Amino acid sequence: MKTFAVIAHKFKGEINLNDLPGSGRVDVIARCINSSIFLSHDIRRDVVFSFFAPNIQVRIKIDSSKVKYLNPDERSTAALIRNAILKMGEREETSPGFFSRNLSFDEFLKELKGMGKIYYLHEDGEDIRDVNISKNPVFLLSDSVNLSEEEEMKIEELAEKKISVSPKIILASHAITIVNNELDRRGL
Amino acid sequence: MKTFAVIAHKFKGEINLNDLPGSGRVDVIARCINSSIFLSHDIRRDVVFSFFAPNIQVRIKIDSSKVKYLNPDERSTAALIRNAILKMGEREETSPGFFSRNLSFDEFLKELKGMGKIYYLHEDGEDIRDVNISKNPVFLLSDSVNLSEEEEMKIEELAEKKISVSPKIILASHAITIVNNELDRRGL
Repeated sequence: MKTFAVIAHKFKGEINLNDLPGSGRVDVIARCINSSIFLSHDIRRDVVFSFFAPNIQVRIKIDSSKVKYLNPDERSTAALIRNAILKMGEREETSPGFFSRNLSFDEFLKELKGMGKIYYLHEDGEDIRDVNISKNPVFLLSDSVNLSEEEEMKIEELAEKKISVSPKIILASHAITIVNNELDRRGL
Repeated sequence: MKTFAVIAHKFKGEINLNDLPGSGRVDVIARCINSSIFLSHDIRRDVVFSFFAPNIQVRIKIDSSKVKYLNPDERSTAALIRNAILKMGEREETSPGFFSRNLSFDEFLKELKGMGKIYYLHEDGEDIRDVNISKNPVFLLSDSVNLSEEEEMKIEELAEKKISVSPKIILASHAITIVNNELDRRGL
């Protein structure tokens, strides 16, 4: 199992399906989910995708081994996220494989720590091709906004290593695709 | 300069912005454009993205050095594609950097051949990490549908090499991201 975790700085919980960029950049999150989970005509069944929205102190987690009704396009994924927000509190599993709850940032990090060693994806890190990746790795990255100093400090304290996937500064979803490719090549 | 070219088998030219998967899988094309062109808060200025729709014998080409108003989300990209279809024939450049025209499959391939050596992305190819990539490469791939026998024959005749980017069968947009990463690492 591997986990991709994203901090969604702009997301405030409201989603207009006709304007995903204007809905706290939920399009970014939807593309990260696509990169984490989808293969051609298939989905990876060994992935957890988790994102934390600091503005509303919510964590939404997708367990790909349990997921149903997930499609690769942004809009239908955003609809499942909207559903996870709307039903939050009623039950934890808001649709098959989608789990949402209120968490603080510290609780979110603690949860990740419990899932495996944390690799913080950052352009200043060591090249992933040279890094030994443990079993059940957790890859943590920011969305389109840089981490705050406090967030950065806490993550660097917790992380096994800071790793980089590209000499350029790339989109979060692209970074996830490259990590999956590296793990696929290693048979992890 | 590098070119990514996709054959969009399902696309028929009609686009409902509220149902991109139902619009001939234009969501797939939009994600391929995203993977080809976008960096974090920036766009690559040395990319041509070209796609051919056999159903309507149309080729739409995006020159990233001239493009304006392009955003990373699927819906706004699909809106530019819709515009390129609606205005086709009036003028070739339907919006800054978007060029559309009627072409046959053979003419599409001939145009690609004029842009550089063609690398056909396919899961049976040689690993891209072991392949010497020429200047101005053209990476050609299929969308979510396999090539027809006739298409495959013509492409294999024209292509410099068949290359693979992953041991798994992955989405076209993910393959493009991995190619860009490999070129970025080589400074190409």
